Amino acid sequence: MLINKKNPHGGDIYSNKIEMDYSANINPFGMPEEITEAAFRAVSDCANYPDPYCTALRSKLSAAEGVPAENILCGNGSAELIYSFAFTLPKDRPALIIAPAFQEYADSLAAAGVDADYYILSADNGFQLTDEFLKKNLSGYSAVYLCSPANPTGALTAPEIVQQIAASGVRMMLDLSFLDLTENPKIYDIPQLCSQYPNIAVLRSFTKNFALAGLRLGYVICSDEAFLEEMSGKAQCWNVSTPAQAAGCAALDNMEWLAECVRRLTAERERVSSELTALGIQVFPGAANFLLLYSDINLCEKLLERGIMIRDCSNYIGLGKGFVRIAIRTKEENDRLLAAVREVLK
Amino acid sequence: MLINKKNPHGGDIYSNKIEMDYSANINPFGMPEEITEAAFRAVSDCANYPDPYCTALRSKLSAAEGVPAENILCGNGSAELIYSFAFTLPKDRPALIIAPAFQEYADSLAAAGVDADYYILSADNGFQLTDEFLKKNLSGYSAVYLCSPANPTGALTAPEIVQQIAASGVRMMLDLSFLDLTENPKIYDIPQLCSQYPNIAVLRSFTKNFALAGLRLGYVICSDEAFLEEMSGKAQCWNVSTPAQAAGCAALDNMEWLAECVRRLTAERERVSSELTALGIQVFPGAANFLLLYSDINLCEKLLERGIMIRDCSNYIGLGKGFVRIAIRTKEENDRLLAAVREVLK
Repeated sequence: MLINKKNPHGGDIYSNKIEMDYSANINPFGMPEEITEAAFRAVSDCANYPDPYCTALRSKLSAAEGVPAENILCGNGSAELIYSFAFTLPKDRPALIIAPAFQEYADSLAAAGVDADYYILSADNGFQLTDEFLKKNLSGYSAVYLCSPANPTGALTAPEIVQQIAASGVRMMLDLSFLDLTENPKIYDIPQLCSQYPNIAVLRSFTKNFALAGLRLGYVICSDEAFLEEMSGKAQCWNVSTPAQAAGCAALDNMEWLAECVRRLTAERERVSSELTALGIQVFPGAANFLLLYSDINLCEKLLERGIMIRDCSNYIGLGKGFVRIAIRTKEENDRLLAAVREVLK
Repeated sequence: MLINKKNPHGGDIYSNKIEMDYSANINPFGMPEEITEAAFRAVSDCANYPDPYCTALRSKLSAAEGVPAENILCGNGSAELIYSFAFTLPKDRPALIIAPAFQEYADSLAAAGVDADYYILSADNGFQLTDEFLKKNLSGYSAVYLCSPANPTGALTAPEIVQQIAASGVRMMLDLSFLDLTENPKIYDIPQLCSQYPNIAVLRSFTKNFALAGLRLGYVICSDEAFLEEMSGKAQCWNVSTPAQAAGCAALDNMEWLAECVRRLTAERERVSSELTALGIQVFPGAANFLLLYSDINLCEKLLERGIMIRDCSNYIGLGKGFVRIAIRTKEENDRLLAAVREVLK
């Protein structure tokens, strides 16, 4: 039973015989050696409980983000924080998910007993959130979920729109898990947004940027300390493992490495996008290390026959049959994917 | 704020200047090298998401425990599973905690919005759960929490009593996190209990046995698969890190190492107990790797002045001023503690 119950969202390399995985959105350049070494050292220190306050990590994050450490809560991956956030919402009003979106928002709301409504973006403008959304009365919602750049569409929301949603006073989960993988990771003024709008909870992740998916580490920034404290109380106090805390500290010393990865990934993304477009596949404009595609051909199935896994997006609310997501990886890997797509289209 | 909000239950070596820690109940012989090495190898594999099904680990646990893999759910430490269990309970009836007990039961029930009642055991018989408890009508409770051996008292509950509580049909959290650290880890027939009583959820932990506290790994066994599935849905699907899964698999190959640790710890426990009793301190009979003590002297404070940390148990429901818990450690460490206690008593 439990074997079949969960349907993870890409990256489930464990139940498929695959040679190449383009289904998960993880930095293909892997974990820098300094991070691996920090995690190694921390493993040797695992006889003790982890620091429940993540003191060293939160102090470094505070400096890196320009926000008070008291406004930071760390989690066992950002996914755990999505659950804690949902469990903290009032249950008498629905939450609003700007879709297509990461399935974990809806799953966590269901687990918490909070209804979910959807605001569905249109493929016609590349799933862009426009100021049309601002006409909506948001006061009846317990929270609004916005991911930017969005997963799986890759669409980046303009800072003015984020600011105006925040100004409405609605509680907002602003998921920036992929922002560090875009060309302009400083597009939002996070310290200003968070200090001005305590109703915003900014979600950030180490999973994708630093290829720490297996170690689990994410954090939330929110200046509503009572809310953050309530979120914190929805999970055990030793939720972030010692190796994850150590890896996070080491990651913050490797931001230049990340910037170099992004430069390479951006160039590759542009190239892959052009080549796929030339092959007649519809490519949506994506700001991060992945692209949403549409094709009448069953790309997932045909690529899987060749041992290549991409992400089927047909079951996302707001998408449907024909939508798939591919990760941008190293040049050689992207070439392999492009060659396989060409073969499929023949 | 967050810095002060959580009050972990022993083992918080991060906020105190201490030289010796007897406050946490962790196997003092540390992690066997095979486990460290397995965790090292897994760290190198952390660019991928962890296996959400913990397939390899659950398969090994199934063989070790003699229960179907479908009846096993793994967690980010047993503490996470305590929260998932609480979130799965109905909220219209209170849960009953057999106290004194681990604070996490009450904290997780509060987080889930479930009221907690207490059945308070008596110091007069060493906090032993007797068949007096069986006279109680349990039908109005959403669950009964029983830990055996109990933390912090060390009292082991007779298998007949466990069986009879289960037979009442009440949902039961049977926390056996410390059982592998007792002389008779097979005292309960877990496969029989779980298959006969789907209302039982047996909780087990790697934290204490294999000194994996910093890596976070625990599991629950329950034959009510619908309940287990609901529990599973209260947390993200990638909750158990890749290094924790690998360490758990390696730990199961080191059960003989654990048995040898327990032989040494049991002998040490008897010795420490006798010596403290001879010093006039009241020592409660404990089955695991720790002892509950009572003394009119403020042992916590006086030992902390000497850089030695023990667990103040005055804030446990059912205990009060004068109760403390000490961990049994290696012979040399126990000698150091005994010497410090002698000094304090002078």
